[in-house]
Amino acid sequence: MIVVLRIGHRIDRDKRITTHVALVARAFGANKILISTKDDKIKENLRSICKRFGGDFKIETGIETKKIIQNWDGVIVHLTMYGDELEKSIKKIDTNDDLLVIVGAEKVPYYFYEAADFNVSVGNQPHSEVAALALFLDRYTKGMWSRKKFDGKIKIIPSNKGKKVISK
Amino acid sequence: MIVVLRIGHRIDRDKRITTHVALVARAFGANKILISTKDDKIKENLRSICKRFGGDFKIETGIETKKIIQNWDGVIVHLTMYGDELEKSIKKIDTNDDLLVIVGAEKVPYYFYEAADFNVSVGNQPHSEVAALALFLDRYTKGMWSRKKFDGKIKIIPSNKGKKVISK
Repeated sequence: MIVVLRIGHRIDRDKRITTHVALVARAFGANKILISTKDDKIKENLRSICKRFGGDFKIETGIETKKIIQNWDGVIVHLTMYGDELEKSIKKIDTNDDLLVIVGAEKVPYYFYEAADFNVSVGNQPHSEVAALALFLDRYTKGMWSRKKFDGKIKIIPSNKGKKVISK
Repeated sequence: MIVVLRIGHRIDRDKRITTHVALVARAFGANKILISTKDDKIKENLRSICKRFGGDFKIETGIETKKIIQNWDGVIVHLTMYGDELEKSIKKIDTNDDLLVIVGAEKVPYYFYEAADFNVSVGNQPHSEVAALALFLDRYTKGMWSRKKFDGKIKIIPSNKGKKVISK
């Protein structure tokens, strides 16, 4: 099981970035996202996408993050530009364990660096937690996103021109 | 040369997503980003990051997108969830040519689908243009981002715990 824990979510400032984080979590193979702050709008939004595009991705908001971390029975990864190199870290992570991936907003308290088994960087340049999560899950799952079936009401057929959509 | 063309940027609504798109472009090996709408704040923000973290990434805003496309001497890729599969498309793109990567905001006019040599999807699920750009550049450059040197005033040393930063 792969769970993404989004911390430091500020409803107004982060709504679109956190939505992208959640959509990436779903599309790249996570089973669930937990968002620190209660935010019914994002929850509604994600559920509507799951209803149409399929899969059994779960979302919960208004989470006691420390409780989740303290009770986590598995590996904890924190994505940060200060972390250890992606390829090096990936080799050390046992993929048989359940995985909690912590994704921060701007300033991440030191607690999370300490709580993580692995602080992992996707490059050490400033970029985006959305991109970092996508690349991390790509490597961790060995590109499983490209083969994953969602069986939704809406299915897009890959095409070099135009839009090919099947609606059940 | 790799240039990212961000179209449909709405200053208020998209400021953070477009900033992430620009930072991903820089971190994952693009040389320049062109943003359709004039936006001095994003430009300032990006230039400040380049000043501190290095590299010679360029940013221009307030662009006549159609002019850029019409005059482009090289390959044009448009990233869209309706596009052809990433791995399949990548094999067809000649990496000796200059590359223009079009990244849309929500609704992309049909013109851009037609103008592109390759409409490419990073999975056919809804997720994020930030993630799509990162994955596309990762595959296109064969993971060059992990070896790229920026020689900035600030350098982060990868580390599994804490923050190791060298400031020149």
